[in-house]
Amino acid sequence: MSQINILTEKDLRAVVKLDLSAIDCVERAFSALATEAVAMPPILRLDIPEFRGEVDVKTAYVPGFDGFAIKVSPGFFDNPKLGLPSLNGLMILFSARTGLVDAMLLDNGYLTDVRTAAAGAVAARHLAREDASVAAIFGAGMQARLQLEALTLARPIRSARIWARNHDRAEKLASDFAREHGIDVIAMTDPRAALQGADIIVTTTPAETPILLADWLEEGQHLTAMGSDAEHKNEIDPAVFAKARYVADRLSQTRILGELHHAIAAGRVAPDQPFPELGAIIAGKAQGRRSNDDITFADLTGTGVQDTAIANLAFTRAKDAGSGQIIENTVKMGDAA
Amino acid sequence: MSQINILTEKDLRAVVKLDLSAIDCVERAFSALATEAVAMPPILRLDIPEFRGEVDVKTAYVPGFDGFAIKVSPGFFDNPKLGLPSLNGLMILFSARTGLVDAMLLDNGYLTDVRTAAAGAVAARHLAREDASVAAIFGAGMQARLQLEALTLARPIRSARIWARNHDRAEKLASDFAREHGIDVIAMTDPRAALQGADIIVTTTPAETPILLADWLEEGQHLTAMGSDAEHKNEIDPAVFAKARYVADRLSQTRILGELHHAIAAGRVAPDQPFPELGAIIAGKAQGRRSNDDITFADLTGTGVQDTAIANLAFTRAKDAGSGQIIENTVKMGDAA
Repeated sequence: MSQINILTEKDLRAVVKLDLSAIDCVERAFSALATEAVAMPPILRLDIPEFRGEVDVKTAYVPGFDGFAIKVSPGFFDNPKLGLPSLNGLMILFSARTGLVDAMLLDNGYLTDVRTAAAGAVAARHLAREDASVAAIFGAGMQARLQLEALTLARPIRSARIWARNHDRAEKLASDFAREHGIDVIAMTDPRAALQGADIIVTTTPAETPILLADWLEEGQHLTAMGSDAEHKNEIDPAVFAKARYVADRLSQTRILGELHHAIAAGRVAPDQPFPELGAIIAGKAQGRRSNDDITFADLTGTGVQDTAIANLAFTRAKDAGSGQIIENTVKMGDAA
Repeated sequence: MSQINILTEKDLRAVVKLDLSAIDCVERAFSALATEAVAMPPILRLDIPEFRGEVDVKTAYVPGFDGFAIKVSPGFFDNPKLGLPSLNGLMILFSARTGLVDAMLLDNGYLTDVRTAAAGAVAARHLAREDASVAAIFGAGMQARLQLEALTLARPIRSARIWARNHDRAEKLASDFAREHGIDVIAMTDPRAALQGADIIVTTTPAETPILLADWLEEGQHLTAMGSDAEHKNEIDPAVFAKARYVADRLSQTRILGELHHAIAAGRVAPDQPFPELGAIIAGKAQGRRSNDDITFADLTGTGVQDTAIANLAFTRAKDAGSGQIIENTVKMGDAA
């Protein structure tokens, strides 16, 4: 018999939070990308135009983690008409030694939210100035909130500004966050003003044309763009590439899906120009920030190693907490052909 | 809340059998390949050489079926040393309308066995002579047994011959099958003799060099080769292409993974030579057998539409039978970025 632990979103929210151990775990996965024989195949994509549906399947094997995750992320954009969320998803965690299923993580995208925010903290840890204390966040959705929370775990953040196209939502996030975390947070209507004097800027929007211009950036700032996970998304002015030290989560992927893609398309960067990856900087194999004056720029498009990292953390925590529901399934030796 | 039905191998064996409804369901999926806007992306493949592991992920959306399956098939070839089977696997059935998970089918490859055998029956239905009564099976494993059983559901099979490299296993399958199904089955040591006078031949081996030569084939026979699901596998002499009417399950796939691949490599067939697909013949859009003298040859490499078909059948049957274990998972409207 094999035992499979079925964990619902509620179970997972109880055992995995955006905290230092989530950040450490994602950091370790990025480092492995630079130092270990990670296997991370291209994304499998299924389109169901009849119902405005699209499904992405991601996976990665990361040596040193007991299991590998396969993540299925469906997006069905007519769902709100049915009173259902557009985005869902789950992860399956398999033993890397036997291929048997260890756990089903029915997270509805929660673990993706956490691992995405954790990557923002990892980028800040390795690229922002040590004394960075002022944050500026573009966007007012779930990731805006989580990215700001992640920054407070990586740097001594004392105040923050929020800019979003919908100013009411920016106001709401600012007041909620200030109340919950006890730091100064204000919503601003002028994105350029939001950047002035900020130490770390994180963009979290689904913008398709740049919302942050190169001229606005100041010496010593760190910028993380995490809104782009598809070809048509673009938050950052390609001219930023002439001004900032660029770091990719996965270069082969940011050339296709990230801000780099648009800088290449705009002729600002050669298609084969080399750039360091975040993992190489963590592992000490490449240099990130060289001085307090550098402007650094992390382009985060999301990688399968983050999924494998967070799924392992969730399974370990769930076992320790005794949570979830165990299903016993037959596993017997079959006969060969 | 969303409800997810968790079905174990035992649950699935109780509700899905190799029977006429499984065959009809797989036939309908093949027909859809020729008539509907089926979406079937290329296979995602993850390799874990450290543990001699490999994982395939297949999926297909087939209009007319309520759900689409994502199938994960791990093969970990050191598992027998641990007392575990090398092959495992599961399918996840998603609603094609909402992308929400309907069921987890923890089948350990059982549903794949059934849908593979069902495809053999579909090929026989549409390509073998109506009066075909003598079967010859190459191989003595699970698929040898299931393919023979499938033929008895498609044609009036009265007797069968089994040839396998391991004659003892052929003997055992022959006596077991004869006892269980009440037809004459004999094991033969000479593969050529096994073919003489047979009406339908099915090859089910993992051979890497041809085990069936073109000279052996006789007028009116139908041949199904289902052993090849990877580039290096090859059961059939490429010279058969000059003698038989060739039919692919999916031409774009048999050119890479099937017997056709080896005929192209041997220079027997042009890489772009057109051939009919099984679905087109079912749908009346292409011609299969033209006369009782034709030799027909079906090359079955396995397709995602078969998985989607059998997963839908399993879920419907399980609901009707009230089997499985229901997990309630939160699904709530999230906020947008």
